[in-house]
Amino acid sequence: MKKLLVIGVGAGNPDYITMQAVKALNCVDVFFLMDKGQSKDKLIDLRRELCERYITDHDYRFVEAHSPERERGDVDYKASVEDLNRAKQQTFERLINEEMTDDQCGGFLVWGDPALYDSTIRILQAILASGRCVFEFEVIPGITSVQALAAQHKVPLNRIGRSIEITTGRRLAAGQVSDADSLVVMLDAQDAYHHVADQETEIYWGAYLGTPDEILINGKLKDVADEIERVRKAARLEHGWIMDTYLLRKS
Amino acid sequence: MKKLLVIGVGAGNPDYITMQAVKALNCVDVFFLMDKGQSKDKLIDLRRELCERYITDHDYRFVEAHSPERERGDVDYKASVEDLNRAKQQTFERLINEEMTDDQCGGFLVWGDPALYDSTIRILQAILASGRCVFEFEVIPGITSVQALAAQHKVPLNRIGRSIEITTGRRLAAGQVSDADSLVVMLDAQDAYHHVADQETEIYWGAYLGTPDEILINGKLKDVADEIERVRKAARLEHGWIMDTYLLRKS
Repeated sequence: MKKLLVIGVGAGNPDYITMQAVKALNCVDVFFLMDKGQSKDKLIDLRRELCERYITDHDYRFVEAHSPERERGDVDYKASVEDLNRAKQQTFERLINEEMTDDQCGGFLVWGDPALYDSTIRILQAILASGRCVFEFEVIPGITSVQALAAQHKVPLNRIGRSIEITTGRRLAAGQVSDADSLVVMLDAQDAYHHVADQETEIYWGAYLGTPDEILINGKLKDVADEIERVRKAARLEHGWIMDTYLLRKS
Repeated sequence: MKKLLVIGVGAGNPDYITMQAVKALNCVDVFFLMDKGQSKDKLIDLRRELCERYITDHDYRFVEAHSPERERGDVDYKASVEDLNRAKQQTFERLINEEMTDDQCGGFLVWGDPALYDSTIRILQAILASGRCVFEFEVIPGITSVQALAAQHKVPLNRIGRSIEITTGRRLAAGQVSDADSLVVMLDAQDAYHHVADQETEIYWGAYLGTPDEILINGKLKDVADEIERVRKAARLEHGWIMDTYLLRKS
């Protein structure tokens, strides 16, 4: 039977890769590369580098697929992601049917961990449920940017015995209310930390985590929020893209 | 200056270790082992095995320290953990002062990730703030049992664009209210999933994740809650200890 490996390769630092992921890389006959947007070339290059570095004795090839783009602007976010995932599902089905023989192993390389704000697992489960392809698959976890953030700031994610909520910039900006005193925000394209009412809240912010371009800023919102916005804007201009994450801890 | 490495070695599967952690292991002159409770011997053995497997060309030794126990029973949880951490802090200070020379590197091996429900970072920051020892330290993230759980069940932690809350069995049993529709529960010693009102909630439960003893159960609470309690009790009796985690997803 065809086998697919959804391999979390960690966020940023090539040394975040696990032994399990290295073993998985060495089983893959064909890697499917599906990047999009401004970070595309950079991220595809990093994936190729990981393979060159860690695959020691196995022939493999890359298949780059056109990755559909999510509809932006004034549309319902969830619906637009679902549309995108349906388009991706068709692409995945075609790749699995046309680019692999029955005894081969296909690989998806996912930044961070495939279980956190990534659709690959969801799409593969939908394909299996549809019955349009037959395969087995495994998921290999990877170090997320959330973990890189905490490690680089040398800060625990939780207070003793308390909760942590991981959420999106979109939800924070929309006024999400949580009883968690530690809030991790991902996918924030709109400087949503400006929406936090309590200016005594501590923020641990990081961009390009684990890479040579890493930037870390920490302090109370009242002291560093404007600095983060300025640094973020400048870095995004310089690199053409930005990936950042932050932890908010209530005072 | 003395250097300390707080090394996340992943949860359960020795292959969860990262390249960064392997490099860190190979820098450590003295490992401090501080386990407690029923899982002590097993976990210390696993740490020694990791060192034997991955340290290739560096002399190292182990120092086992008596780890204080948290006061149990009818006490305030946060206060009892703070008491425990003060006792641990004294132990850490003694180890750093007495067991390392100024040019040496000390290592703490932490299951999962040092940033998630672990006190090592918090204690080292407290020692630095007290000024009673001088050292620098680094944190190396590791794969958590939360990530192992999601990978083994092949399920994303979040719904599209939604939040995830990571919390404790204690908080769930105490009736914590969260707007997150995905709730990850750790450190549950009291079968707190029985407290969830909505019996249509889906549970993804796992014990001894990533190890040969791994157990996975998935289903709606109304269908599997009793089974989980029964399996959990039997496994705990058999092994003498249990480490389990679960994801609750609202219907």
